Amino acid sequence: METKSSGGAVGGSVSESSTMILHNAVVVTMDSDCRVFQNGAVFIDKDKIKAIGRSPDILQQFSHVAHHILDLHGQILLPGFVNTHVHTSQQLGRGIADDVDLMTWLHHRIWPYESNMTEEDSYISTLLCGVELIHSGVTCFAEAGGQHVTGMARAVELLGLRACLTDSVMDTGDGLPPSWGIRTTDECLQSQKKLYEKHNNTADGRIRIWLGIRQVMNCTDRLLLETRDAARELKTGIHMHAAEIPYENQVVMETRKVDHGTVTFLDKIDFLQENLLAAHTVCINDTEIGFLSRSGVKVSHCPASAMRMLGFARIREMLNAGITVSLGTDGAPSNNRMSIVDEMYLASLINKGREVYANGTIDPTAFPAETLLKMVTINGAKSVLWDNELGSLEIGKKADMVVVNPFSWSMVPIHDCISNLVYCMRTENIVSVMCNGRWIMRDKKILNVDEEEVISLAKEASSKLLRRAGIKLPSRMNVIH
Amino acid sequence: METKSSGGAVGGSVSESSTMILHNAVVVTMDSDCRVFQNGAVFIDKDKIKAIGRSPDILQQFSHVAHHILDLHGQILLPGFVNTHVHTSQQLGRGIADDVDLMTWLHHRIWPYESNMTEEDSYISTLLCGVELIHSGVTCFAEAGGQHVTGMARAVELLGLRACLTDSVMDTGDGLPPSWGIRTTDECLQSQKKLYEKHNNTADGRIRIWLGIRQVMNCTDRLLLETRDAARELKTGIHMHAAEIPYENQVVMETRKVDHGTVTFLDKIDFLQENLLAAHTVCINDTEIGFLSRSGVKVSHCPASAMRMLGFARIREMLNAGITVSLGTDGAPSNNRMSIVDEMYLASLINKGREVYANGTIDPTAFPAETLLKMVTINGAKSVLWDNELGSLEIGKKADMVVVNPFSWSMVPIHDCISNLVYCMRTENIVSVMCNGRWIMRDKKILNVDEEEVISLAKEASSKLLRRAGIKLPSRMNVIH
Repeated sequence: METKSSGGAVGGSVSESSTMILHNAVVVTMDSDCRVFQNGAVFIDKDKIKAIGRSPDILQQFSHVAHHILDLHGQILLPGFVNTHVHTSQQLGRGIADDVDLMTWLHHRIWPYESNMTEEDSYISTLLCGVELIHSGVTCFAEAGGQHVTGMARAVELLGLRACLTDSVMDTGDGLPPSWGIRTTDECLQSQKKLYEKHNNTADGRIRIWLGIRQVMNCTDRLLLETRDAARELKTGIHMHAAEIPYENQVVMETRKVDHGTVTFLDKIDFLQENLLAAHTVCINDTEIGFLSRSGVKVSHCPASAMRMLGFARIREMLNAGITVSLGTDGAPSNNRMSIVDEMYLASLINKGREVYANGTIDPTAFPAETLLKMVTINGAKSVLWDNELGSLEIGKKADMVVVNPFSWSMVPIHDCISNLVYCMRTENIVSVMCNGRWIMRDKKILNVDEEEVISLAKEASSKLLRRAGIKLPSRMNVIH
Repeated sequence: METKSSGGAVGGSVSESSTMILHNAVVVTMDSDCRVFQNGAVFIDKDKIKAIGRSPDILQQFSHVAHHILDLHGQILLPGFVNTHVHTSQQLGRGIADDVDLMTWLHHRIWPYESNMTEEDSYISTLLCGVELIHSGVTCFAEAGGQHVTGMARAVELLGLRACLTDSVMDTGDGLPPSWGIRTTDECLQSQKKLYEKHNNTADGRIRIWLGIRQVMNCTDRLLLETRDAARELKTGIHMHAAEIPYENQVVMETRKVDHGTVTFLDKIDFLQENLLAAHTVCINDTEIGFLSRSGVKVSHCPASAMRMLGFARIREMLNAGITVSLGTDGAPSNNRMSIVDEMYLASLINKGREVYANGTIDPTAFPAETLLKMVTINGAKSVLWDNELGSLEIGKKADMVVVNPFSWSMVPIHDCISNLVYCMRTENIVSVMCNGRWIMRDKKILNVDEEEVISLAKEASSKLLRRAGIKLPSRMNVIH
């Protein structure tokens, strides 16, 4: 890094007053014109992009006012990726529920795990998850609804990430651990409003608080309706798992008296709104796709967890209907890899493959690379209701960016840069990440926390948590001590 | 590394006479008893495993005769992975054929690319591919049938890998580039026999030459039959793409007068034998699964390329029928990532997901982690007819091994080691690789070639090759120069 001012920042982070030029990069803007500057540059002032264009132009115009000028040596500069469905507080439970049926997954692994968490566990879990998110180029994520939002918020603030945090909210439900205790509808709403007051727009505006609905079988109609109204009042979003499995739709048909499933029911009670982020939506019919489209609901597609536990989502049909679909990793016990980079690759393969069943023939032209890249950038930003400031590299938007080094064995040769970003790039290629104008990873080194320390804390906390929760995993092989 | 003798080897490789103990590792043997030594060790003499067991026992028995003693600090030691279908000579074509239909893929991208290759291109392509294979823990691979085997052999010998190399063999076919020229049946057989004489059992026995059949639509019956007989005579294997797409089966039914597809036809002419490695086998019925099982044919399942271009293979049914199924990456223009580590993860997700269509319901218990790990180790070794020496860590087998560092953000916490190896491990976690008793990668550094130099050679060669072949890729976005 060439630092023009001797009073520059330490470790690559920028001081409040600093301005910076990043130049000599392939700048993939993801703006509405799909501009890619082959030798591009951006000029950043504090947390915002002030100019973007060809390197010579930007250097000529802004060199004299830039405190830092960084040559990216032909690497690729992209908007920070948005992971729109991730359970940060489940990170300590990675590997606790693999290859088991859904009831074992929920009743004997996830619920005992979640119900035994402390706020400190959630903090450590989010730190560990955040480290993985940053390594995979994520600058913003939507928490799927988890435990101890205050713990999450501490971790997000420290890591330097941007997030829409959501509590796991349930006011009814069979089979929940007795120790957990079901909150009343009022408690659910009040506690979320308190979280909103305490954390919304904190951490230099990087943290937003959303309202949560775990899923339709764990909530009353009153909770749904009052959540909808509270979100409108607070001008925030709602994050909800929806139409995950056929059983869910059956229960909804029986108990809520509708002719299909969750989405039909949510439409009936006027819950579908532009500020709803629906995760998975695997079990939906054409009419329901119409409901989602008409009401502007956003969908988080989680290909790995869908393949593993839910089935194929009808993503092509949703995109064709004009629905904003973005990508999520889901939680560690549902996927294991919290890598949005891998999720792009997977989403392409799985949705191309699904064409065989959907249309009786393969179609390798379905889901081209540019569509996938859109899903993890601008569509992600739209899904978290933040596209006025995020999701593309444009003047006035936040400086949330990823530097990709494509000159390694995993990405060369580069005949088609966009294609290689989607189909070849791995977390190994993500070298630096900036959020809100500050570097949070440089040259693969996480800057705001000590990775080794986080890993060590996570090992200890997760072992204790599993013991407390009474979770014991059978041995898969013949282990000799 | 603790080196007992001062006259030790350079760069971690071992001299001919050296003996070595690797200890303090989680040793996942993949032997028939599925033994995992929690604190295990192996004693290696030259290229072979001489002892395996608990660390204290091995240290006590062999420390006095070991030239090198290496503490693996609790990392995981596994058999080297076997990639049973990879087009090494296609590596320079990564990204040239993404998101296009099959005819464009073949006629306008792959054939022009392959028909314009030189032996030097193949050498460089195999070097680049080999670097990626080693980084993903592969010690042995089966070339799928490519261009200029002599170039491949040079690269494999240099890299220190183990391989079954196969020429791309066609003696008929419509639409092939005129410049390529179709070889006669005799030429096909003679040239392969020459390759066999020249390269088989070279490079300290690491290179074997197999016979190739590109696919059924590009070969005469005579070529098939004489290839079968030649393989028997030479005691080697045959590598063939089989039953890839419905069109192939249709053509076979029309031209070869059978009631289903390629596999039925191959059974009819008595081509199905234990030494046949059939790649993909996506379009097969129950009867054909029976044929493959009865005759002991091995199947290479390539989940990424199948999802992208072919459809779902009936892997669960094949495994249930007792067929040896292993995993392959296919070539770079069909997958992009040449990572057997990613392929394990994908194979799990895709085949779990396929249950929805195969059986009408999801089944997260299908394809457990241990099955996947078997596919890339012992089943891989069986597929390349080398399981007497490869595929598991056992006394008398070759010292082909991988060291995995699981103590990073991508794999912790480790509640279930086997599960984390399959679902969390990435190429980033592969730190060291040994083939034939020699380290070919240590601490992520490839030892026998200069990675930067290979990348630089690959960039230049691939650009020239694409120009020569007249391959021009459309721009996906609005590129501003």
